[in-house]
Amino acid sequence: MRNAQKLLAPVLELGCRGYVAPARWAARAAEEIATIDNSHRAPAGVIEVPSRLLMGPGPANAHPRILAAQTLPLLGHMHPPFLKIMDELSEGLRYTFQTNSKYTLMVSGTGHAGMEAAIANLVEPGDKVVVGNAGIWGERVAILSRRYQADVVEIKVPSGQTFSYETLKRTLLEHKPAVLFLCQGESSTGTHQSLAGLGDLCRQTGTLLLVDTVCSLGGVPLFADQWGVDCIYSGSQKCLSGPPGASPFFMSERAMEKLQRRKTPPATYNLDMNLIGDYWGWFGKRSYHHTAPVSTFYAMREALALVAEEGLEAMWARHQELHHRLWDGLRSMGLKPFVEKDEDRLITVNTIKVPEGVDWAAVVKNAMDTYSLEIAGGLGPTVGKIWRVGIMGFNAKPQNVDLVLDAFRDGLKRQGKL
Amino acid sequence: MRNAQKLLAPVLELGCRGYVAPARWAARAAEEIATIDNSHRAPAGVIEVPSRLLMGPGPANAHPRILAAQTLPLLGHMHPPFLKIMDELSEGLRYTFQTNSKYTLMVSGTGHAGMEAAIANLVEPGDKVVVGNAGIWGERVAILSRRYQADVVEIKVPSGQTFSYETLKRTLLEHKPAVLFLCQGESSTGTHQSLAGLGDLCRQTGTLLLVDTVCSLGGVPLFADQWGVDCIYSGSQKCLSGPPGASPFFMSERAMEKLQRRKTPPATYNLDMNLIGDYWGWFGKRSYHHTAPVSTFYAMREALALVAEEGLEAMWARHQELHHRLWDGLRSMGLKPFVEKDEDRLITVNTIKVPEGVDWAAVVKNAMDTYSLEIAGGLGPTVGKIWRVGIMGFNAKPQNVDLVLDAFRDGLKRQGKL
Repeated sequence: MRNAQKLLAPVLELGCRGYVAPARWAARAAEEIATIDNSHRAPAGVIEVPSRLLMGPGPANAHPRILAAQTLPLLGHMHPPFLKIMDELSEGLRYTFQTNSKYTLMVSGTGHAGMEAAIANLVEPGDKVVVGNAGIWGERVAILSRRYQADVVEIKVPSGQTFSYETLKRTLLEHKPAVLFLCQGESSTGTHQSLAGLGDLCRQTGTLLLVDTVCSLGGVPLFADQWGVDCIYSGSQKCLSGPPGASPFFMSERAMEKLQRRKTPPATYNLDMNLIGDYWGWFGKRSYHHTAPVSTFYAMREALALVAEEGLEAMWARHQELHHRLWDGLRSMGLKPFVEKDEDRLITVNTIKVPEGVDWAAVVKNAMDTYSLEIAGGLGPTVGKIWRVGIMGFNAKPQNVDLVLDAFRDGLKRQGKL
Repeated sequence: MRNAQKLLAPVLELGCRGYVAPARWAARAAEEIATIDNSHRAPAGVIEVPSRLLMGPGPANAHPRILAAQTLPLLGHMHPPFLKIMDELSEGLRYTFQTNSKYTLMVSGTGHAGMEAAIANLVEPGDKVVVGNAGIWGERVAILSRRYQADVVEIKVPSGQTFSYETLKRTLLEHKPAVLFLCQGESSTGTHQSLAGLGDLCRQTGTLLLVDTVCSLGGVPLFADQWGVDCIYSGSQKCLSGPPGASPFFMSERAMEKLQRRKTPPATYNLDMNLIGDYWGWFGKRSYHHTAPVSTFYAMREALALVAEEGLEAMWARHQELHHRLWDGLRSMGLKPFVEKDEDRLITVNTIKVPEGVDWAAVVKNAMDTYSLEIAGGLGPTVGKIWRVGIMGFNAKPQNVDLVLDAFRDGLKRQGKL
């Protein structure tokens, strides 16, 4: 505890030199300040970060090359070498999304920011939005769309199922919505929503097709242009092996036309794609909008470089093979998938039925305590009914899948269930 | 270029095993897919990040310990060791903001996200907001507040000046606004807005006092509680020496009461402080809202540990002394401050008048080309009139200030102006 005069000594002293301190402010402040309060000046100590293998629904562990990129020195957010890195990100996303669209970028925020960016920009107040709710992501998009004053038509399937083409066709023809939202990989239930044929349908009904690919991008096939998708957001910390904090984002020419036709700007300034696009050079020039998360963008530059090096086909096949390896092992223990139909099953986040009489939480706890391994329980309505195992990105390796199987075997044995 | 059958071979093959592939999707997709397009599969090469000393208005170079923390292995966003790091962030912010409020956290986004979080949560449609516009930050807050349907009363001062207590008092008494916005450090003009006495006034008029401290927090005195400030957002990449991507955020008990009294939730879900606060444990429990930018939060945990280790008084004095060192040197070259009044001058971002006949851009270019040193020109209405020199955080060291002076000396000499 120091008194005001002592506290402000450097300020007041330098203030006397006539060109340094805001003297008026210092004088006023001196009347106000009693002391610096040190009660929250906690001794810092060493940051404690245990090493864990993250085989839940995400984040997955990041690739070391990607983490290492974050130690590179910062650049200014408008420096030409940084703008070059942004261009590399846009181009890497074109490959990853399989699009020729100019309109790709990393949103400066996590997947939720990407979700909000999509809704805020595509939806004008009063627009009809059909939201496919197959789990918590659809539910969130419905909430979010209502906040942006959409007229939301929510369609639902029971947990563990997906929407059939026929249902979606009927709904589109009935409502002719401005936007149709679907989640390609619904991580709360472990389902994979087919997008086949929807692009054509959406063109017939004047609908923009918006797809969440947070836990699927890089792990399963996606062809933005050939499938006629209009807007996609994703996550950095799943199959792309990056840290959370950037959201891969894509808009089609049709989506951009709608954005530019808007009567009112999006409520959000921070996620206004007209302004952010200007920073990314979508419209030919470069204007400052915000300061990009420089270290995170370095990381994602490396993440997309790794995608280009391995190639999408190899990545998709790797995820597919390990999903197969996982289920070979799980079935040998008598465990069964939560998702009934083969064709509805997501390969990146696998959901496993908890058998009767098994303490699911004890299996999860044993995996963490014995193996420093994260496997997860359910989320929302699936809590207690399922386990969730992610096989994504850098973590999609045989030895990791085998460790997951060891942990299940051990966990069940300890309960006398194997 | 591969054909569809070959591309989907692993999918289709595994699909035949009956529990792996979404066969319906694969079959449909096979009809649709012609080829993977490799035209955007750019050869990655090595990421190019030149080393630069960033003495512009920000970002400043990050402290190596802070950058290094970003290589630590990822943790899940709800793992107890990560929640502990979040608690350390909240506590570190209490010290840095000088508050006992429960309501401190890092917004998962850059300073602009913090700005939007503040407006979106404090302002209900129709609320009167007085925005002190002394440069581009006030201007942005005015735009943003209008998007959130505030009734904005914009007050202005000429570039390089600040609002007097008397002006603010008169405005508050006249409008009795819901919110008064001021920018403590206006980096586009280099002014320091005094906050003395405003907390009391705002309590009389039922006004919440909202302050932007993006380029001032940690560099100049701030006492959130003792000065009666109700909401603050800041940046990570200035005086706190972190990477951009997290926004220190604070709300007072009064601001929280207003938030909880709202008739409608904020339009933004991503930045809804009722939901984000729930993730940070503001209300006693912990609910998932979004996946925090884990690496960036590690970094900021170290940044705030460094603040606690050095201590606020020492940090403020260091910034003050180097501002003095800079101006001693600049004055010896005949250069003059853009901000006329001593008491209006910001010490963290210094603005320097470009003398008649001097090519300001050539000085900036020479600094970069010869010294790998960033000094900046003006922003918005100050372009061409000023240079801007930041002395912030890790970069606030005598040798860096001396290099800036060398670069000015050299730049002026090359033009025959010294």
